[in-house]
Amino acid sequence: MEVKLAVAKINKYATSESGDSVEVVERPNGGISVVMADGQSSGRGAKHISSLVVRKVISLLSEGVRDGAAARAASDYLFTERKGKVSATLNIASVDMQTDTLVITRNNPLPVIIATHDDVCSFDDECNPIGLYRDTRPLISEMPLEPGLTVVQFTDGLVHAGSRTGDSLDILTFLAAHAEDEVDPQEIADALLTDAIHLDHGRPVDDISIVVIQVTNQTSDSIRRMTVDLPLNK
Amino acid sequence: MEVKLAVAKINKYATSESGDSVEVVERPNGGISVVMADGQSSGRGAKHISSLVVRKVISLLSEGVRDGAAARAASDYLFTERKGKVSATLNIASVDMQTDTLVITRNNPLPVIIATHDDVCSFDDECNPIGLYRDTRPLISEMPLEPGLTVVQFTDGLVHAGSRTGDSLDILTFLAAHAEDEVDPQEIADALLTDAIHLDHGRPVDDISIVVIQVTNQTSDSIRRMTVDLPLNK
Repeated sequence: MEVKLAVAKINKYATSESGDSVEVVERPNGGISVVMADGQSSGRGAKHISSLVVRKVISLLSEGVRDGAAARAASDYLFTERKGKVSATLNIASVDMQTDTLVITRNNPLPVIIATHDDVCSFDDECNPIGLYRDTRPLISEMPLEPGLTVVQFTDGLVHAGSRTGDSLDILTFLAAHAEDEVDPQEIADALLTDAIHLDHGRPVDDISIVVIQVTNQTSDSIRRMTVDLPLNK
Repeated sequence: MEVKLAVAKINKYATSESGDSVEVVERPNGGISVVMADGQSSGRGAKHISSLVVRKVISLLSEGVRDGAAARAASDYLFTERKGKVSATLNIASVDMQTDTLVITRNNPLPVIIATHDDVCSFDDECNPIGLYRDTRPLISEMPLEPGLTVVQFTDGLVHAGSRTGDSLDILTFLAAHAEDEVDPQEIADALLTDAIHLDHGRPVDDISIVVIQVTNQTSDSIRRMTVDLPLNK
């Protein structure tokens, strides 16, 4: 088996900094975690918040702290730092080799989409972003690492795409159409982002981040790989 | 312009954990850093050391600490933690958008290869790994971000490949042959790793990690991308 992870990310039109932060970190007991946060509003202030939240979470995860505890710590930290005046959404998705599970942690009103060979469903129970209240707890869903499993999480820019013209993206239908063929995660992330940018007529109304994780049956060559493409405004 | 980064990594034959750690982190003032450490010996103990070093460095970099200061801090930290008895090599490569430069920081006797369209050279001035002495300082080289620039850094598994049979990889010649065509960084990393594994007859004598960073002239679509492939031993 192999786990493939892909991230695609674009800034709100005409802003030089994204209010979203996404980082990947290795888990000390095996596996990886991807942490995504969206800071309230946009631009530099939002970036500062989301990066503060992601930094706190990856630092705790890399010390072996469990995902739920790391999310609660980030919430308390942001609440204390900003006196309950600033919120951020937080998503953690972890490939946990101790339990052989995929662990999804949500402090984000938006759903996380979970697709298997048979089914596409939405993990959308109600939950709060972090930073506004004491004792904010995440929702956690855990499932066995099995070939065919695909998980998609995103920030609200993807959901708001097209809102200026009353259009919107049907993410569930899009994934249902692709779940059976094990499309490469980078292709899924790129296709969703391209559709969203198209709905916004090439000028994204908000920062958009998309994370796709897929468990495949591919015979593995035991090589870990990572790539990053970073556009420069030059 | 666009910066492309690729990592390829394999464990020493028949070990379940690599003593190398590689992590990528976003810089708070723009850009990214890739941090690579190789802990003394191999297996779980080495992994613990390299992950401790990388964690310390990415945590400092993500707070805005400069690369040289982060490397010195990691050295003092390891020296204090392990009373000067355990060493690790440390490499940091940063795309720094504040200075529009690529910053290479080395606490590793092995060279870092720097290729431009015209030339391939080896940044190989003498320097020490961290952890063994007080006041260990890194060597730093900084160059403008210009299309055609390719930087390759690696752990000693790549250099020791083939040592059982007296063979070795000529990394400089390999890169000189590919510098002009702007070969994709993932292809460069994969090709080097494949050659190394071949020299070790399919059983790497040591953990191998390769990081390739390339600055290209490609017209950018403003989308940041990241992928991770994680083989599972199942």
